[in-house]
Parts: sequence; C-alpha cells; structure tokens
Amino acid sequence: MQRAAALVRRGCGPRTPSSWGRSQSSAAAEASAVLKVRPERSRRERILTLESMNPQVKAVEYAVRGPIVLKAGEIELELQRGIKKPFTEVIRANIGDAQAMGQQPITFLRQVMALCTYPNLLDSPSFPEDAKKRARRILQACGGHSLGSYSASQGVNCIREDVAAYITRRDGGVPADPDNIYLTTGASDGISTILKILVSGGGKSRTGVMIPIPQYPLYSAVISELDAIQVNYYLDEENCWALNVNELRRAVQEAKDHCDPKVLCIINPGNPTGQVQSRKCIEDVIHFAWEEKLFLLADEVYQDNVYSPDCRFHSFKKVLYEMGPEYSSNVELASFHSTSKGYMGECGYRGGYMEVINLHPEIKGQLVKLLSVRLCPPVSGQAAMDIVVNPPVAGEESFEQFSREKESVLGNLAKKAKLTEDLFNQVPGIHCSPLQGAMYAFPRIFIPVKAVEAAQAHQMAPDMFYCMKLLEETGICVVPGSGFGQREGTYHFRMTILPPVEKLKTVLQKVKDFHINFLEKYA
Amino acid sequence: MQRAAALVRRGCGPRTPSSWGRSQSSAAAEASAVLKVRPERSRRERILTLESMNPQVKAVEYAVRGPIVLKAGEIELELQRGIKKPFTEVIRANIGDAQAMGQQPITFLRQVMALCTYPNLLDSPSFPEDAKKRARRILQACGGHSLGSYSASQGVNCIREDVAAYITRRDGGVPADPDNIYLTTGASDGISTILKILVSGGGKSRTGVMIPIPQYPLYSAVISELDAIQVNYYLDEENCWALNVNELRRAVQEAKDHCDPKVLCIINPGNPTGQVQSRKCIEDVIHFAWEEKLFLLADEVYQDNVYSPDCRFHSFKKVLYEMGPEYSSNVELASFHSTSKGYMGECGYRGGYMEVINLHPEIKGQLVKLLSVRLCPPVSGQAAMDIVVNPPVAGEESFEQFSREKESVLGNLAKKAKLTEDLFNQVPGIHCSPLQGAMYAFPRIFIPVKAVEAAQAHQMAPDMFYCMKLLEETGICVVPGSGFGQREGTYHFRMTILPPVEKLKTVLQKVKDFHINFLEKYA
Repeated sequence: MQRAAALVRRGCGPRTPSSWGRSQSSAAAEASAVLKVRPERSRRERILTLESMNPQVKAVEYAVRGPIVLKAGEIELELQRGIKKPFTEVIRANIGDAQAMGQQPITFLRQVMALCTYPNLLDSPSFPEDAKKRARRILQACGGHSLGSYSASQGVNCIREDVAAYITRRDGGVPADPDNIYLTTGASDGISTILKILVSGGGKSRTGVMIPIPQYPLYSAVISELDAIQVNYYLDEENCWALNVNELRRAVQEAKDHCDPKVLCIINPGNPTGQVQSRKCIEDVIHFAWEEKLFLLADEVYQDNVYSPDCRFHSFKKVLYEMGPEYSSNVELASFHSTSKGYMGECGYRGGYMEVINLHPEIKGQLVKLLSVRLCPPVSGQAAMDIVVNPPVAGEESFEQFSREKESVLGNLAKKAKLTEDLFNQVPGIHCSPLQGAMYAFPRIFIPVKAVEAAQAHQMAPDMFYCMKLLEETGICVVPGSGFGQREGTYHFRMTILPPVEKLKTVLQKVKDFHINFLEKYA
Repeated sequence: MQRAAALVRRGCGPRTPSSWGRSQSSAAAEASAVLKVRPERSRRERILTLESMNPQVKAVEYAVRGPIVLKAGEIELELQRGIKKPFTEVIRANIGDAQAMGQQPITFLRQVMALCTYPNLLDSPSFPEDAKKRARRILQACGGHSLGSYSASQGVNCIREDVAAYITRRDGGVPADPDNIYLTTGASDGISTILKILVSGGGKSRTGVMIPIPQYPLYSAVISELDAIQVNYYLDEENCWALNVNELRRAVQEAKDHCDPKVLCIINPGNPTGQVQSRKCIEDVIHFAWEEKLFLLADEVYQDNVYSPDCRFHSFKKVLYEMGPEYSSNVELASFHSTSKGYMGECGYRGGYMEVINLHPEIKGQLVKLLSVRLCPPVSGQAAMDIVVNPPVAGEESFEQFSREKESVLGNLAKKAKLTEDLFNQVPGIHCSPLQGAMYAFPRIFIPVKAVEAAQAHQMAPDMFYCMKLLEETGICVVPGSGFGQREGTYHFRMTILPPVEKLKTVLQKVKDFHINFLEKYA
C-alpha cells in the first residue's frame, strides 16, 4: 500500500542495470570499424544514436534474453576458445525452450509438417495415412496448395476451424466460432497486436494495463513500446502465488489517479510463478473485469502444463460462459495459445492463435487490417498449430505413438516439477512454492546484506549479482527475479525445469552448493 | 510545387473511402451475436470501439489487402453458393503471391526444408546428398539440432554467415559482416523494426520519413502506426518511373517546415512501379542522403527480378562502398531481402534478412533487445532464407535441376513482363511504362469525367470505382493506384504478372475489353 507511486509507472518495465547498449559482438564490430576509418577522415556524427532514437524503444527491457544471456554467450565463446572454467558447458535454463534442452519433437507433428513441406512424400509408404490425411487437408486449404503462399491475414480457414473445434472440445461444448480465431506468430504477436489496438489517450486518460507481478516481461516491454501505463498487481507468494481480487481492487483504485485502466492481463498457468488458478478465482477475476469495465487478456499458453493432482486448467472463456449471459455477452476477452509450450515445445515455428470474445465487429475489421500489413503469420507455424489442435484420435494409426510421446513429456515434466520444488526447499535460504503448472521454478532466495552491498557497488540489482555469480561459477544461466518484478526487498530467480531428469538433478545440486557457498561468503 | 501542404502529412497514408471497419465475416458474426442476446439483457457499451481504440492504428491503411480484396472474398463465396456471375473464378492479381498463382516451389529448397523438418529423412536414398549436406549444417547450428528451438534473436549464426557470403558474392567482393545481418519475419518485419527505432521527437521535431509515390503501402501503414511524418517524393512516370534527385531536394526542403526528415526509403526494383534504378541514380541518392544526413532504407526484395536487357540490379551497399570511405564509413544504411519474391516465391515461410551498415554499436544492442521481445523469427523461414543465399553450385548433384527451375521462372516472368506492357499499350486510354523489374504492371488509366462523377456519388476514389467494376464484371482483382499514391488527377492500378502465360493473356484480354466498354459507358 505504501508504494502506491511505484506501482503505476509510465512505460517502465522493471529496471536492471544493464549492458544492453553494447552487445559483445557489436563492441567487436565497432573496434574493427574504427580500424578501417583513416585518421584524417573522422567519422561524422551518426543520425541514429541512443540520444536520437525512439525513447519508448529505449525504455524497453526484456530480461529473459537480457544481459545475463549475453554474458552466457560470452562464456560459451571463451569455453570454445579453450579458456578454463570450473565447468565445461553453459546450461541455458533461462528460457522455456524444450527442444534446445533435448526434448524430441512429437513424431506425428513433424511427419505432417514434412508432408506439407515436400508433397512428393505423400506417395511414400514410410508415412502413416493419418498424417497424410492431415497434410492433404492443410494443403487443400492453402493458396496453390502450398505452404509457400501467403494465407489470409487472419490465418488459413480450415486451421481456424480446427482451432474452434479444439476449443469447443476443451471447454466441454462451449461453442467457439472460427471467425473469432486469429492465427498469430507465436502468442507474443497476438498479445502485442491486441494491446496495440487497445492503447489510446493522453495524460491521465492514457490507457492503463494491469499486469501481474511477477510477470512475463513481454508485457512490460510492449507497454513500454506503446507508451501505455503499467499497472502492477501483486501475486500472493505466501499463498502459492495466487491472484487475490482484493489486490486487483487496490491496484485499479490507485491507478485511476494516474491513468485510465482499461486492460487486465492474466497469465494462467503462471509464468514465471507456476500457479494454476482455481475456477473460483477465475470467476472472481471475470466479475471484477465486468464491474470495472476492463478488457481481459488471458495468456493460457501453458494450458497443457498442469502437474499438481489438485489443480485443473479452466479456460477464461469457459468460465465466462458458465457465468451466464450478463457476462458472456458483455465481457471482452482475448485469450492466447501457442505451439511453443505444452508437450510439443515447437518454439521455432512461431505458431499460435488468439480467440476473441465480444469484440466489436468494427474492431474485428481493424484487427484484420492491422494484421494484413504484415501479410500473414508463417504458414508453417499455422500448420504446426493445426496439428496441435487436431492430433491423432483413438482408432487412427498414429494414436498410440502420439499418446505415448505426449504422456512421456508431460509425465517427465510433472516429475521434474516435484523434484525441483523438493530439492530447492531443502536448501537453507531458498523457498520454492509448489510448481503447479507451466515449466519454471521461481524460488525466493535469501541474499545477505553484504551481498546486497557488493551488488550495489557493481551497480547491479542484488539478484542480478547473484545470478551472474551463479553463471560464472557453475555455467548455469537463470534469470533474476528483478526481470519479472517482485515485492521490494524480496529476491528470486526463474529457472526452467526442462533439462532431462539426470541433468536437472545435477543442475539443482550445483545451485544448492553455490547457494550455500554464497551465503557463507557474504555472511 | 503547389501541393506542398498535401505532400507532408502526419501519419496519413493515401486515403480511400473504405469498408475496412466492417469485414464481411465480422458483419455476419455481429448479426448472429445479436440474435443470441435476449432482448431484456441489452449489451453494455463495449470497452474497445472505433472511438476508444488507438487512433494511429485506426489511421492505418493497407490497400494490397484492403476493401477490394474483401469484396473479392465475398464474390468467391457467392460463386461457391452457385450465384451466377459473368465469370467462373476470381483471379487474385492484387498481390505478389507466386505459388498461389500456380508457380511450383524450387525442388531443392523444399527438399532441404523437409530434411530439416523431419531428420529421419536424412537416411532416405530419395534425397540428394547436397540437400542433406545443407540440412545437416542448418540443424547443427540449431538449439537441440531442431527447427523447433528458438534461435538467437538476430537469427541462426551460420545462416547469417551464409547471408554475408551471399552479399559479398553478389556485390563483387565488397565485404559483408555476419554481425550486420539480422534475420527477419519477411522483409516487412525488418522495415517496421528499423523504422520503429528511428522515429522520435514531437511537433516540428517529429521524424519525417521520405517515401516514393507510388509506394508499397507497408511504408505509409508503419509511418501511420508510429505517428511519424510521411514525406512524399514523386517518381517520374514520364521517365519510366525514375527517381529524380531534384524531386528529393524539393520534398526534403518543403518537409523541413513541418518535421525533421531523418529517413529516406527507396524501393529498387520498384514496387508497384517496376523501374530498375541506374547505378548513376543510386550514386546521386547516396550523395543526397550523405548531404542531408538521412538514414537510408533500401528495399531490395526484387533484386532477382530484373527483366529489361538494358537494366542491372545494383545494390545500395555496393555503390556506397564504391563511392569511397567518406560515404562507406558514414552513410547509415539498412537494406532488405526476402524469400517471398525472386524466383522462389516462398511467401508463406516469412523469411527475410536486413543488413545494416554504419549502425552505431549501441543501436545494434537496442535492435537485438527489441527483436528479443518477440524471441526470434520463424526458424523454418530462416532455413528457407539460407537455401536462397546458399543454392547448389556447379558440380553439385542438384545444380542442374535447380538452375533449370530458376531460369524457367525468371524467363517466364521476363516474357510476361513484355507481354503485359505490349498488350496494355495497345488499349486506348491505357499507358503502361516498361516493366523493367519486380512483378507488377502499374498502368495509367484514363477515367472519363462521367465515371469520376459516378465514383464521387459512391464516395469512392475514381480508380477504386474502376477496380470494383473490373472485379464485379470480370472477377479480376487488382489494386487501385490510390492505395499506393499517385499524382493528383492521375489514375492507375497495380496488377501482378504472375499468372501462367496463357491465363495472363486471357486476363489482359478481359481487362482490355472491360476498359473499352468502360470508356464507352462513361463517354
């Protein structure tokens, strides 16, 4: 309550003292460029500089690929050059990139993709019939029957139909309309596009966007880029990072002094915090949005990643409809899904979709117009999305293998979630909430006063200092909590649970040893 | 000269009276939504409306997929429903989408892509060794050896190296640095990203962006979205749409009263105008940019599409280096390429790259940061870009077939360019400049006074009226010149030359008959 002013900041994501301005390779390029210029020809002042550039872009921060990741790259280069370190490899636990951590692609998905890519393979006996059937259907709907044509800006029609059918099944029959589905370049693209349309006004009428703290930093970055007002609401760490509607009330009331709060963003299951919202909580949030006239953004990209036996994923769409027509006819909602997470982990294809509910028809036209400027999302990513929403079913040739692969990935993730929680909680000075879902641990870490002072001396946030030391001493790359936001005076880091079980055990043991050592050193 | 005020407009693309606000399908959705709401539960006022939305997004126009294309979609649906028309199919000549027009993908490209997608195929004897070699190399550089991992935000390292090697070959040895290469989601993504960084200031200090008229409407759309100032310079239709540096001087001088002109955009070969700039012209433009301290954007996506025997493609980068160190060390340049055009026409993969020259190292860091928010361009599109810049060479197994396919596409395009020019110029009231390059005709059309009046009565631009009539009477979908910009009182349309030769002949004959009939009707 006492930090009211700090909670509403104009276009400011959480700050970390950063070396963003100078990437390592850029510094090298600068050095070589300087050598090429003859002394008598001094370089003219550049047009595009830190001073002259778009200040909103300058204000953007994105911790998941921030200074810690640049440092990880430098260390990898040093290892390649044979420089001795206390470790032999960098483990990039900073990002939810399953296949980079060794997870194998789902065979069926890649078979359909290969058939779509090179239709000559449709004659090959080495591909199953159900994969061929899906590939033919996708190609039939593409211009020139090719992934190489542009699709409609909203996405390939039959894929939008498959998405709508998937949502209807997922939500126990609550209908979905293909006209409300927009295929996107990953979920990030959908989120930033709808925010771009939503933001308007100046001064105290500028659009306020409510986001959870901790948040996934795409939100703060886009808010900054759009010069919108970030309105923080804090998740309750003492209560498994649950969302409390009283906290939403506090945040929106305080924000009204500074801006026009118009959008409420929810991440469920939570990133970086891993909580899975209860049905009751979602109902409360929807009622709050209805009451306060807020446009709801539901980031549901981890909908397949629920591990706690007590938790279930409930979509905002479904709960909205179950609350009756006063809500289902009025609350404006955009929800997001992606090919990048779940059991498939197809990040590189940049597939995703957005479903909109109660969007004004004129705004739908505006949305299609805005999307059309970029022509279309990658058609290969759209095809990948299709396979995710239209997988083999019982009785089809690939069903058994598909199910085995899917269960194996999700079963392993559930094991690793428990393993991580248990091991972190054995370490003095680390507390880890249950990982109910998603694919990250976000443990709270105790940082001694002496370490906080040392960090300040290096002009670093204390948890950035901690994570840098962890990286330099163990090769493990995690993201400091300050990159996601956290209550003042608390420190965390985000680590993926994606490494294979045995490797994850080693990683956790190394973090434990590092932490104990760190506490001793700065006692 | 007399239209000075009109030439510099704040965030205003060329206007067409449009039905953008209501897409056909959205209107249908609205109708059904209204039915679902019971009368006693009136709908609350929506949060997101045309009035409350981001006004800069509202101002965006994108003619290539604008109202004429929505109309084309409606007509296609009517044809499907069996409604009789004077034609049996809609021919979408509005967009440069080669494979949608029946062009076959380049075999080698798709073979490598299929191998990358489903690496089991690396054991298959039906794929050539040179394709396997490329696929192995790409996969080796991907996280987890998979297209499903995120790449570095700037793009896969080895692909950036291949792009740099390609540029060096293309430019006769002028060196290219992989550190200056950024892989993008099509060229559009690169162009809008660099413009986003460049735009700043308020009032008379707001960044002015010089664009050719006629232009490709991505430029006006992004300028509008960024609330930058569009500064028009007119291409010289009497002189094959050549760029005249005196016109650049006029435009920049007049713009200085209203804004801070900081960026000069060039499209070469021209879209929609098809001219190929001479080396001398490029030198003049670079000198002008140096003199006026303008950041150069060179849109060179049609670099492989040059048909006139008198013309050659010269890259801005190469000419810049040949002009000596005063220029090559000082002029800031970003140039763009794509997988979507050329001979490959792989639009759906959304592959592209941007090369930057003399970018301040701190800005490079900012660029990587901004790109990292969206994580990475589609990795499949990056792989497609790699094959375009690293095709089979003499001595390799696939070389002959690859060359045959490439020459066939480009040879046909050259034929169709000549055919189109010749046929249009036989029609009274149509004048078509030589199609030196790219893949469009942009003929000037005479519209009689009575037709102009009829258009005004329909609140349409006269060339929109003409194109709508063409679409309704023949099924041929082209884009009115007003969507690209044109000198006041002149009218044009853009039509792709991509349909197969025989079909193109039919299309041209139909346009001819329509035009003669139109002139008679409105005489």
